[in-house]
Order: sequence, then C-alpha cells, then structure tokens
Amino acid sequence: MYHGGGMYVLAKKLFPICRSITGAGFRQSLKILDEAIGGNILQIHSIKSGTKVYDWIVPQEWQINDAYIVTPDGEKICDFKENNLHVLNYSEGIDAEISLQELQNHLYSIEDYEDAIPYVTSYYKRRWGFCIKHKDRKKLKNGNYKVFIDAKHFDGVLNYADFIIPSTQNCKDEILISTYLCHPSMANNELSGPIVAIFLAKWLLEQKHRKYNYRFLIAPETIGSIVYINKHLKHLQKYTKAGFALSCIGDDNAYSLIHTPREDTLADKVALHTLKNKANFKEFSFLDRGGNERQFCAPLVNLPVVGVCRTRFGDYKEYHTSKDDLSLISPTSLENSLKAMQEIIMNLEINEIYKSTTFCEPNLGKRGLYHTINTVSTNSQIPLSCNFLAYCDGQNDVLDIASKLNIQAYELKDLIEKLKFHKLIL
Amino acid sequence: MYHGGGMYVLAKKLFPICRSITGAGFRQSLKILDEAIGGNILQIHSIKSGTKVYDWIVPQEWQINDAYIVTPDGEKICDFKENNLHVLNYSEGIDAEISLQELQNHLYSIEDYEDAIPYVTSYYKRRWGFCIKHKDRKKLKNGNYKVFIDAKHFDGVLNYADFIIPSTQNCKDEILISTYLCHPSMANNELSGPIVAIFLAKWLLEQKHRKYNYRFLIAPETIGSIVYINKHLKHLQKYTKAGFALSCIGDDNAYSLIHTPREDTLADKVALHTLKNKANFKEFSFLDRGGNERQFCAPLVNLPVVGVCRTRFGDYKEYHTSKDDLSLISPTSLENSLKAMQEIIMNLEINEIYKSTTFCEPNLGKRGLYHTINTVSTNSQIPLSCNFLAYCDGQNDVLDIASKLNIQAYELKDLIEKLKFHKLIL
Amino acid sequence: MYHGGGMYVLAKKLFPICRSITGAGFRQSLKILDEAIGGNILQIHSIKSGTKVYDWIVPQEWQINDAYIVTPDGEKICDFKENNLHVLNYSEGIDAEISLQELQNHLYSIEDYEDAIPYVTSYYKRRWGFCIKHKDRKKLKNGNYKVFIDAKHFDGVLNYADFIIPSTQNCKDEILISTYLCHPSMANNELSGPIVAIFLAKWLLEQKHRKYNYRFLIAPETIGSIVYINKHLKHLQKYTKAGFALSCIGDDNAYSLIHTPREDTLADKVALHTLKNKANFKEFSFLDRGGNERQFCAPLVNLPVVGVCRTRFGDYKEYHTSKDDLSLISPTSLENSLKAMQEIIMNLEINEIYKSTTFCEPNLGKRGLYHTINTVSTNSQIPLSCNFLAYCDGQNDVLDIASKLNIQAYELKDLIEKLKFHKLIL
Repeated sequence: MYHGGGMYVLAKKLFPICRSITGAGFRQSLKILDEAIGGNILQIHSIKSGTKVYDWIVPQEWQINDAYIVTPDGEKICDFKENNLHVLNYSEGIDAEISLQELQNHLYSIEDYEDAIPYVTSYYKRRWGFCIKHKDRKKLKNGNYKVFIDAKHFDGVLNYADFIIPSTQNCKDEILISTYLCHPSMANNELSGPIVAIFLAKWLLEQKHRKYNYRFLIAPETIGSIVYINKHLKHLQKYTKAGFALSCIGDDNAYSLIHTPREDTLADKVALHTLKNKANFKEFSFLDRGGNERQFCAPLVNLPVVGVCRTRFGDYKEYHTSKDDLSLISPTSLENSLKAMQEIIMNLEINEIYKSTTFCEPNLGKRGLYHTINTVSTNSQIPLSCNFLAYCDGQNDVLDIASKLNIQAYELKDLIEKLKFHKLIL
Repeated sequence: MYHGGGMYVLAKKLFPICRSITGAGFRQSLKILDEAIGGNILQIHSIKSGTKVYDWIVPQEWQINDAYIVTPDGEKICDFKENNLHVLNYSEGIDAEISLQELQNHLYSIEDYEDAIPYVTSYYKRRWGFCIKHKDRKKLKNGNYKVFIDAKHFDGVLNYADFIIPSTQNCKDEILISTYLCHPSMANNELSGPIVAIFLAKWLLEQKHRKYNYRFLIAPETIGSIVYINKHLKHLQKYTKAGFALSCIGDDNAYSLIHTPREDTLADKVALHTLKNKANFKEFSFLDRGGNERQFCAPLVNLPVVGVCRTRFGDYKEYHTSKDDLSLISPTSLENSLKAMQEIIMNLEINEIYKSTTFCEPNLGKRGLYHTINTVSTNSQIPLSCNFLAYCDGQNDVLDIASKLNIQAYELKDLIEKLKFHKLIL
Repeated sequence: MYHGGGMYVLAKKLFPICRSITGAGFRQSLKILDEAIGGNILQIHSIKSGTKVYDWIVPQEWQINDAYIVTPDGEKICDFKENNLHVLNYSEGIDAEISLQELQNHLYSIEDYEDAIPYVTSYYKRRWGFCIKHKDRKKLKNGNYKVFIDAKHFDGVLNYADFIIPSTQNCKDEILISTYLCHPSMANNELSGPIVAIFLAKWLLEQKHRKYNYRFLIAPETIGSIVYINKHLKHLQKYTKAGFALSCIGDDNAYSLIHTPREDTLADKVALHTLKNKANFKEFSFLDRGGNERQFCAPLVNLPVVGVCRTRFGDYKEYHTSKDDLSLISPTSLENSLKAMQEIIMNLEINEIYKSTTFCEPNLGKRGLYHTINTVSTNSQIPLSCNFLAYCDGQNDVLDIASKLNIQAYELKDLIEKLKFHKLIL
C-alpha cells in the first residue's frame, strides 16, 4: 500500500506550527499526529515546570504570540508571523528601542549561507534574540530599531506522548520507537521522524501477529527523553529488546545508522542487517550521535537504542535552517523510510533461534522441498532450505543465518513456516 | 617413495565399472580397493533395503545389465556398454517403442557443453532415462525409437566399507577419513577420493608411531554417510578429533578447503595451517559444501569434518559429465594430493601443547642448540628453538606456534625431539 | 625543559669506556649514570661469579688492560687503546707469535661493510680474538704476527643497579623501566637506553604526584636480567603492571614497539596508544624481540614488558659495529625519545576506569562545561566532555576512551579533573 502521499500531507499540516520544548505548538502537533493515526491512540502526559529529573529541571512553559523588528525606516523585518524561525526559540519577551550596535548582539545569522534563517535555541539560559538571513543582516543601517517579542515563560507543563501497540502473543518484551517533535518550521529535522513513526504505528496496528510490544515515544528532544527515562527506567531496562531513535529520515539520500556505544546490541544487529546492503549505507559510531539516543545510551541507562537517519543530522547544509523546508522531503522518500523501518521490524519479528530436529540432513525431496533428480544444473546448488537448516544449531539466530546467506531475514519467512510445518526445526 | 603411478593404475582399473549407491558395481569396486591395500583390510558392511535411518529409508539394490536406444534408422545409440553414463543412474527398466516426442522427456543432455554426456541420477523417485551428448540429441529424427533398459530394483543391501588403523599409543581419539564411491565412470569425481584415501591408509600402516586411530570410511554419498552416522554417532562424537572428506582431489589445480559451519575445529585449523601457503589455495565456507561433510556437520551430528578438494565440485566444467575422465587426473596430481594429506596427518600427529620448563630463556649454547659467539651475522637472528620456546606457555599448541613461525608444524619435529631430550619442554 | 644537550653530554662521557657483562668498565659506567641523576640514587648490587641462576651460571669477572697485534712490518694494529671494539669482548689473554694463517682464525670482520669494526662477544665459551675493519684485514701480508691481549678472567662479581622512585599515593603497583649497559664503545646500542632511562627517572623525581612506583633496572644484557628475575620474580609478577625495555632509542628514525607474546597487556596497550600515531611507527611481534624483554616475557616469567626502540636492533646497518658512534645519536633525537617515554608514563598515570554518576547526560551547560546556546555552528558538535562521559561505563578505561576519541589519554587530564570536581564521574 502506498503511504507517501498521506505522509507528505501530514508534513504540510504540521510544518507551519511554532513548536518548542514546551508550549501550545507542541500540544497542537501531538493532537494532529493523534488524528493521523485515528484518534485516541497517543497518551499525552504533562509534567510540571520545575520538576527535578536526574541532573535537570523541567523548564517553564513558553508562550509566544508575536515577534518582529522595525527598522529605522519603519520596515517590519524578522516577522515571526512570516517565519517562526525568526525568533530565537524559547526567547524572553522584549519591547524596546535600541541601536543597531546593541541589536547585533541579539541577532543570529550564517555568514556562509546567507540565504538561510538559522534555527537557534536557548533553553537553559534566558536570552532574547532574532534569527535573520545574513544577506538581510548586512543591509541593516545605523539607527534605532524597535524590537518586539510578545513571549513569556510561566510555570506550566512539559508534554510528551507515548503509546503501546501490544504483542498478540502475550510477550512482555518491547521494541522502542522514539522520535522528537520540538523543532519549529523545519521538515526533515524533525517532522520526518514523527511522521515515519506514526505511519509505522498505523502499519503495526494492521498486523495480525506481533511478537513484541511496540512502545512509541514522541517527546521534546533531550529533556523529554530524560523525563521519560526518569519515569520508566526500570521497566525500559527490563523489557526493551531494541530501540530506534528516528530523525532526519525524510530526505532521499543514503541510510545512516548510529550505533550504540557497545555496538553489539540487538538494535545494532538488526539495523545493520537491514540497512547494510542499501545503496551508500553509512555506519556511524556513537561518537556521531545527535538525538535522543544520547540519553537512552548513557552509561547508567544503557538501553539498546540506535539512531536511524537518512542523511545524518549536521551532515546536510540545510540542517537547522529555514532551508530545511518541505522541498527537502518528498512522498517517495518518506515512503521509502517507512519501508526501511518496516523491514527492520519484520526482521525483528522473524528473528528466533531454531534448532534442526533431524540427525543428518532431512530428506527434503520427499516433502517437495528439493528436486528429486540430480542433473548438471542442480548438482552444485544446495537449496536455501538446506543451507538454512545447516546453521540451525540452537545458537545462531535467524539474523545470523540470513546474514550468512546474504538475504534479509524476513525473506526467510515462508521457508521457516514450511520447515516448522514439517517439524524440521523447533 | 613415489606412488603416483600405482594410484593412476588403480584409477584405470576402477574407471570402467558402473557404480551406483547400491549394487554389484559398488561391491566390485570395494574389492579392488581392498586388494590395492593388501587384502582383508576393508570391513565391508551390508544394510538391508528398507531400513529406516533417521529421516531416510535405505533404497533398494539396483541391478543393470544393458541399455540402449535403437533409432528409426536401426542405429544403436546411448549404448550402456560403450559408456555407462548413457543410462540415467538408478533407472527403472524399460522395453518399448516410443515416438521421438515421448523419448525427449526421458533424455538428458547439456545444451552448452554438447560434446559431453551428463551424469544424472534419480534415487528417490523412480524414473527411466538416457543421457546423451547434446550434439547427438540434435540429430535425432522423428520416428519410432526402441528404448531398452535391462535394469531392476529389488530388496537387497546397501554396502559400505570401513577400517581402523590403530594408534600405537593406546590413544582412544580418532581421525576420520571419509570418501564416497557411488559414481560410475568418472575419474576426478570420484575415483580420486577413494584412491587418495587408500594410499593414505597404506602409508599410515607403514608408520611406526601413530598417536591417533585412523578411521576410514568408503560409502555411497549421502545415504551411505547417514547410515554410518546412524550406527556410530555416539562413538564418533566422543572420539573424532578431526575428519576429512575427500573428493575431486585428483586434478592438478589449487587446493580447496571447505570449512565446518563453526570454522574453528581442529580439522579447520590443521587443514588451513597445512594448505594455506600452497599456490592459489582457496578457502570456502560451509555454504559451499557438497560431499559427505554435509551429513557429518549437520547441527545434531556436529562432527569436526572439513572437505578437502583440488578444484571444488561444480567449479570445473567437466564435473558430473563424461569429460571427467582419466585425462583429468594424473599420476603427479594424485601423488601431490596424497602428500598434502600426509602433511595434514603429520601436522596432527606433531600437535601437542608444551610448556617451557625453565624460568627465563635456557642456556641453549651449552647444549649445542645455539651459537656461542655473537657476531654481526648472528646477532639479530634468534634461533628457531628459542622462538619455539618463547611461545610454549601451556596454551598455544604446536599448530599455533608453527603458524606464528610461518612453517609447517611437522617441520618442528626434530626440534621438538631435541627440546624434549634436554627436558626444556614438558 | 630542554634535556637533549645534557643527554648528549652524558653519552659522550660514557662512550669511551670499555664495558662488558662484568668488570670495571660496567661499574664505572654505573657510577657516571648515578652522578648524572644526582648521586646515591642507583643501588648497585654484586653477585658472585659461579652463582647458579636458573639454567645459567654467573660468569667470571673480566679484566682487560691492553690488546694489540704487531704485524711482520712492526706496525701496531687492532690497538685496544684506539678502539676497544678491536678486542673480542670477554676475550682470553694471549701473548704469542703466530702465522697469518693461524691469526685468521681469530680475526672478525665484515666483508660487505669493510670500513666498520664489528662488535663480537664470546661469553660462554673461552676464545681469544680481534675485530678488524675488513679493508685492513685484506692488507695483511704473510709472516709472523705478535698477538697480545692483556686480559684475565677471575672469580669476582657481576654488577647491576636498580632503584625505585616511589608512588606518592602508597600504591603497591610498579612500572618497570629496564635497560642494559654491557656494550663497549657504541652509542645507539646501547648508551641511548640507559641515558633515556636516567633522564626519565630525573623527570619522575620532579613530579609531585606519582600513582605508581617506578622500578628502574640497569643490568648487563641477558645474564643481568636473569639474575634480577631470579632474585625478584614473585615480587615482579605480583606488582608489575607494565614494563618497558629501552634500547636503540637514540637515533632519529620512526618509533618501534616490540610486543609481548600475548600482545594484550597494559604495556602493549599503553605503548601502542602512545606511539601509533607517530610518523612511520612500526609494530613488531615478539618474534622480533632482541633485548631483555626476551627474559621478562619468557613463558614462566610472563611479565608485561614491551620493547621500545627507534630503529629496531639489527634493522640499521651500523648496529653492533664501530659505526654505531656518537654521530648516530643526537641531542634532539634523545630528547624526543625521552618525551615519548614521558607520554607513555603520563598515559599510564591518567589511566583509570571511571563511571558516569548521572542517569542520562548531565546538564553540562549549568556547570559551564557546554555552550548554553544552540546555533548552527554548535549544533552538530558534541563536546569532548560529553563524548568522554558517554563511554564512562565502568568497563572502558581512559586509554580505551582516548583511543576512540583519537587523542592521547594524558590530554584528557584537565577534563577528567573538572568532571571529578563536579562529581560527574567516580
């Protein structure tokens, strides 16, 4: 089934909203995501400003209504209503008239990418500021500027959403799908992450059989995952078999995998198995991490969570600027990313350790699983069934065997069903 | 001593016989092999048709007397007496007159190798058929053909031979040499295997010292080894330290090793150590297996048996055709293969774990094992004895150390004797 | 601080002395080394001739006063007083007139390096002899030669020196620095080893903090280290965490590391970490050993001692000849070798296993350890502190983490201090 169109429509709907780590934009976005999956699926949680979580304090809620600068010539620039990236995200309010010189201390632009408005945040130190294209900044003349930001911070809540799509087999083990949603109008980073996650959830809900429980988390970056880990650590450590942090997954470039520090968890194994043969696949160590895998893989948390991206955060020019817009993502690339995640899940679901039940090779021919005549063309070809059985020694799992056979584990599904039917594996 | 000539003579004697997995040709061949080694060495065993062995049933005995086709022009073609490959091996009998169209369903030929008669078998489904050069098949005209195969299947026995050349040291451990003998007139596959095995046995009988027992098995492919494993599994699992399945070992190309699934058994280690430096040596995973190692290495059997070939089965054009004739093997190549197997055995026999007995290096000079003068030419050369001792830590075995020293383990024999004589290793 | 000049001056002072494995030259050299470090630091030990140590007997003391040959023309050649390499080291005395033919049996020269006097020794078999440039040897005419060596062997002592620079933290663990000093007038091999060792000791004495005890050993090659191991084996095995055998460390070529047989000790790890990024660094297996690491790493001794050289012994033409003179070493290269050893020590001293104390990443910004604003330039850069913490899992040591981060462990010192101050690691 084709989903790319719907995914892109959802991106268009979410794009204009001004999100931050707290506030109305974040809540509105969660609501839209919930509707996209059918409603009443996302569990939306609130945690009070000022709550201590490990080494951190939950920050205040941020409310932004308007922001702009008026030049000495009376021109309105950096208009929040035109592009919400113009305001420093989580900025304090201000209403003043200041010199250009003073204003410069509060402007952010990129000298060697002068056509782009940068995305800048200051969550843990109060500042006010505007982000501006460098080419526009260069034109500013001396004189007095009116700076106006109608924003405030107040004790409110930080929100995040989670939901579980349950195992159909009463299994306790969980797969974690994590993504963040705190960036304002940017498309690849990060609307692509939540959108792929939501469509992955839709697909999982349609499946008749699910070995695992699937835990989805949509939270603000860093503080959101810290809040979540703080609340669920023991449970997560006990039941999470593999996790995937999705971001920057809507462009059309090669897939990237960011490993856990140990590099040997089931998440590393299944993601590598699934992605390694995709064109130009890139493998990164944990040193190249960037999203919430930073928290999930911290030493005392130590969850098996890898990062999955197309172009890794920071490795594309448009990253964290107004150029990361809807033209950077496409229905096709979103659809392909969804498919890659589905493949990862299918490879996880098929993965078991089997043991051959027969001494020596079984007589596959009598069960119709092997040719009964040996000619030159068949002679030196051992069938897949026979190769699969040869490694079913009670130690290799299906991922191990599929990697040896150089095929995707889920492609062995029919074969495994047949072998189970004939009681040739247990 | 030169054996190539005798090996080739034996090949010539065995070549014309029509063998199959059961029947008189197989028995006659075993008898000739037994004579070649001096007589009364091979223990010939019979197992009744219909006996259940694991997932298999021992097939009936096959008796073939004659087979041919008479063309509409009265010409006799596909004459079994000219080349026993002309009949589908294990074919049913037939005596009928049929159209060319019907005959075509029972003919086997190779389109892109039109000068060769293919070797085709149908053991587990009853069929009748003829194998023919493709260039001859193309000449067949419409009309009625007389097809005649004087063959029958009946409840009889399946045969195989084994024998043990005992340890001279009362050791219980065994080395297995396995080869199969069920192919009709083809030389490299498979007369080379049994011939190298028999001459290896002759050589072993001449040795004064044998650490291990050497168990030889000459059986039909697949079913023969399954029957054998069925009868001896516990013993084999308990005592087999390493095993070697020999086939396609009479041509003059590079040596090939087919690893066990685990790739780390003593058989893998010693075969790799022995063969790796031979010109163009090829290493294959268990995925590239083809002979009885398929059964010996099945998960529940799990014996340390590697395959040793020259050109691997299926990797040469003549494989399983009438072109695999006596011109494909030679006295020299058979002799060299025998030598390679002798090297493997010598490397196994020399292999032990030793521990140096002295703290620090011993004074080798006073025992005549080291120069007593240090000049420029001797200064930077540490003698082999000293290097060997440096790794005798009670953990490395002789194969490990020889691999580090980049020589064949058996080349350390004199040195080891000297060091033992001087009580420098234990 | 610059030490190269002082190191080179010390080399010039030691160079002329005729050393051997026993005797006055060795003692005189130890005294000069002791003065160089300030006096009364080296503990000089004596062990009687004839003492049994493991498989060896301590050889007699050697006293040499003069040696020369008088040619038939009355010319004095091979004059010990001109170059002490002219006499076979540890030679017997002789005073005789012999034919050229007989003399030839007692001459040592190098045919393809005819300008160099070779360095030749005969410690464990009594011989007399002279070493001569091959170009001079070729000129010798027939006739009677007077050969005179005023040397004798007598029951005396073998000497060696050791000293310990103690831990400032009451730690029992030791680092061993070993070097030998038994060669006569040669510079790189081996004056460079003792000189680097002595200046390393001077530097260690200046340090305020030393985690480890540093055990220095200056002994004759082979027999000296055997004597030492014999006396201290249990202590050395219990407390030696890493050891370094220094020789041929005064030239200006690439650094070389000679591994232990196991290749995985702390000494292997820290030396590899420190040296691997130096230009043209060379890594050798234990098969390429040559100095006292031969004894320290013998199987029953099994100490974690690697060899550290510039050009490995035997890999330079001048090795063990009169051409290994003061022109082969330089103040700069001695200084650089000292620095490399200091780096090894600093990497050892900083090496610990830390564990992050916080769940999730700590809030580094509030401690001034991280920027508080996220702009495009900072976004995709994770600070070193954060990367270091990410691997502080209680299993990786600082060397492991520094290798991942591709910097020298000691460069993490300030960072580690800060993290400890903030109680972010334990």
